[in-house]
Amino acid sequence: MNANFDPTRTIAELKELRALTGDENGAQRVAFTPAWAKARAWLETKLAAIPAETHRDEAGNLWATLPGESERALLIGGHIDSVPNGGWLDGCLNTLAGVEILRRVQAEHAGLPPVTVRLVDWADEEGARFGKSLFGSSACSGHLDLSEARTLKDKNGVALPEALREYGIEFENVGACQKELSNAAAYLELHIEQGPVLLDLDLPLGTVLGTFGVERHAITFRGQAAHSGSTPMHRRKDAFLAAAKMAPEVYRITDRHGGVGTIGSCTTKPGIVTSVVEECGITLDQRHLDAGALSRMLHDAKEASARFAREGGVTVGWDRIWNIEPILFHQELAAMSDAAIAEVGASPYRLPSGPLHDAAEVARAGIPTVMMFVQSLHGISHNKIEDTKEEHLEMAVTAFDKLADKAMEWIQNVNRD
Amino acid sequence: MNANFDPTRTIAELKELRALTGDENGAQRVAFTPAWAKARAWLETKLAAIPAETHRDEAGNLWATLPGESERALLIGGHIDSVPNGGWLDGCLNTLAGVEILRRVQAEHAGLPPVTVRLVDWADEEGARFGKSLFGSSACSGHLDLSEARTLKDKNGVALPEALREYGIEFENVGACQKELSNAAAYLELHIEQGPVLLDLDLPLGTVLGTFGVERHAITFRGQAAHSGSTPMHRRKDAFLAAAKMAPEVYRITDRHGGVGTIGSCTTKPGIVTSVVEECGITLDQRHLDAGALSRMLHDAKEASARFAREGGVTVGWDRIWNIEPILFHQELAAMSDAAIAEVGASPYRLPSGPLHDAAEVARAGIPTVMMFVQSLHGISHNKIEDTKEEHLEMAVTAFDKLADKAMEWIQNVNRD
Repeated sequence: MNANFDPTRTIAELKELRALTGDENGAQRVAFTPAWAKARAWLETKLAAIPAETHRDEAGNLWATLPGESERALLIGGHIDSVPNGGWLDGCLNTLAGVEILRRVQAEHAGLPPVTVRLVDWADEEGARFGKSLFGSSACSGHLDLSEARTLKDKNGVALPEALREYGIEFENVGACQKELSNAAAYLELHIEQGPVLLDLDLPLGTVLGTFGVERHAITFRGQAAHSGSTPMHRRKDAFLAAAKMAPEVYRITDRHGGVGTIGSCTTKPGIVTSVVEECGITLDQRHLDAGALSRMLHDAKEASARFAREGGVTVGWDRIWNIEPILFHQELAAMSDAAIAEVGASPYRLPSGPLHDAAEVARAGIPTVMMFVQSLHGISHNKIEDTKEEHLEMAVTAFDKLADKAMEWIQNVNRD
Repeated sequence: MNANFDPTRTIAELKELRALTGDENGAQRVAFTPAWAKARAWLETKLAAIPAETHRDEAGNLWATLPGESERALLIGGHIDSVPNGGWLDGCLNTLAGVEILRRVQAEHAGLPPVTVRLVDWADEEGARFGKSLFGSSACSGHLDLSEARTLKDKNGVALPEALREYGIEFENVGACQKELSNAAAYLELHIEQGPVLLDLDLPLGTVLGTFGVERHAITFRGQAAHSGSTPMHRRKDAFLAAAKMAPEVYRITDRHGGVGTIGSCTTKPGIVTSVVEECGITLDQRHLDAGALSRMLHDAKEASARFAREGGVTVGWDRIWNIEPILFHQELAAMSDAAIAEVGASPYRLPSGPLHDAAEVARAGIPTVMMFVQSLHGISHNKIEDTKEEHLEMAVTAFDKLADKAMEWIQNVNRD
């Protein structure tokens, strides 16, 4: 091991950041707020000490570059922003592991690595203030919907473009940051899992196959209000009955196809104790790593909803809220991640990511990408109780550094072909 | 037929009342409002013309009396108050059929019928302004909960006692009206069905067996919020899944026991598209004419909820909102109602009442009681489209008059025993 590489320093820096920008309720680094700016300034002092060239791009993403013999670049990404009352690892573990790798690469190659190595701290991964996640990375990938983002407001009515201006970002110009990816040859991201899969398997680390595709819909069943006392059961057009049948059906659908499916909300009208439900609205969020399977999940849910509506003499309507295709990570990089995990003494394991990550945006832009997950102690994220054993954090930073090394070599070889 | 009895006059008077106190949205005779007072004043002119002795009791109920040879009294009840945007028949059909019967009895017995005959127009059957139905009749039966009623407010914050005072009623004294029932020997009430049972059977009239007992509960399932993308299906503690299983179960319970059961509202927390539901609240309203069956329905629902909670790793809690025992009407009076229905050429049929009626309060006070239902064209009530064929209205008033005659004779005979 290189004397300049020390994963315990990453843990110490994570604690330093927590003390600087968290409180008793958790991390408070919401993007485009003073606490976030404070975290960014702290990060810049760390980067300046490496030393690395740093600048902020047109979308507010912070880039730290170690120029190499080749312009082809290995990118390492993270996000120092958090949700309000967030966990101490979500996003910043990625960034600070990247800082440690830059230190190691800078020292090991005496200032001139064979390929360029860049750390990017994405702006507003969480979307906590404006309700739209992956702002900086989607601007960079070219997938940010400007007409939609232009109208976003925070809870105080401040528009996104106005908030960005306070942090030196000109909204209409954010797309210019796409040039940052021009020499990108690979992208790596380490992240706490945010789910219980590795915890249940007692594994410290995993290689991420990709991010789930998402089909998100509002489903409305419409029947007829009727008096709860005077309407015989066989005469009812009960919108709640039809909607409720969807709940176990969503589980049967994932039993058949894999993936996940969630009914997150249910509303009833008139919604009073003495009336049969006239209108029942539910939301359905379905996710799968395989586009065909996701499509079959959606098909099955639609078919079931029509059947339940027919059985109950009610109607059903679907409105898409949002969707995104599954984004698969790079097979060769995934193999390198497996190997890096094995080298730190852990069993390689592959799993999909339910939540989206900045890595998905980079992959959508055509850059070979992979993520590594580290176990989450409670299987919980976006919460102050989010945690990971320190031994697992050390293993994660070490394995991630090994992955970076393998990726640099791969970029050199690909370049040579 | 007596020349003084004319059911088409009842229909004409119903239309007169509609023109006086309704609008394009339906009946507007909400109790303790000017429209109701106007309807009451109109009714008093009709009663004065019979002539009948009239007075308002301490709870605002309007009594019209034809004193008889015996003080033992046949009571005929109705309510001229309506819900806002109500139907043109609900309640006032009862009252105006009673007016026609008083006319007939007065004429036929030359001012001295063998038993006393009284019409009561109950105050605030609907509870539309203060959310508490059966005000006048429960005051009279002795079942009005004064401590609860004292605190009731309308949507403008006006307290019930204050509103009553405007109509000459002293809240603290309403219980004194119980004396009105001291000589009551039987109570009859005609009402539009408010449900589709007679419509489905193509029957104009029915004899009401009694009013359903009601068990009304709020049921809360508590699980755990979790990310919709990162939480495997088998790890979820999905409060909505458990609650949703109750919907078909409520139908299975009525398949087994009869009666009706309704889940009228469903709420979810956090209630967002990207989270498994942590807390789901539903309301359950179960009704049955048989107290034992109602108790078994409730038992089965509780047992099922515990089973669904267990299956889903969530907890469940029950809170009673309200309950009332089934109230059975009088068998001999029911037989007279059947006979009266047959005498107008219709097939007798017996059915329970899902909604409560003033008759239930009178029956609770120990007075032999029966109701007669007339078919509702759309099976719908509390709505401007509420309607009944005029030929059915005529049959109803005629059959109800025959029932009154039989009841008077029965009272005489009972008195004699």
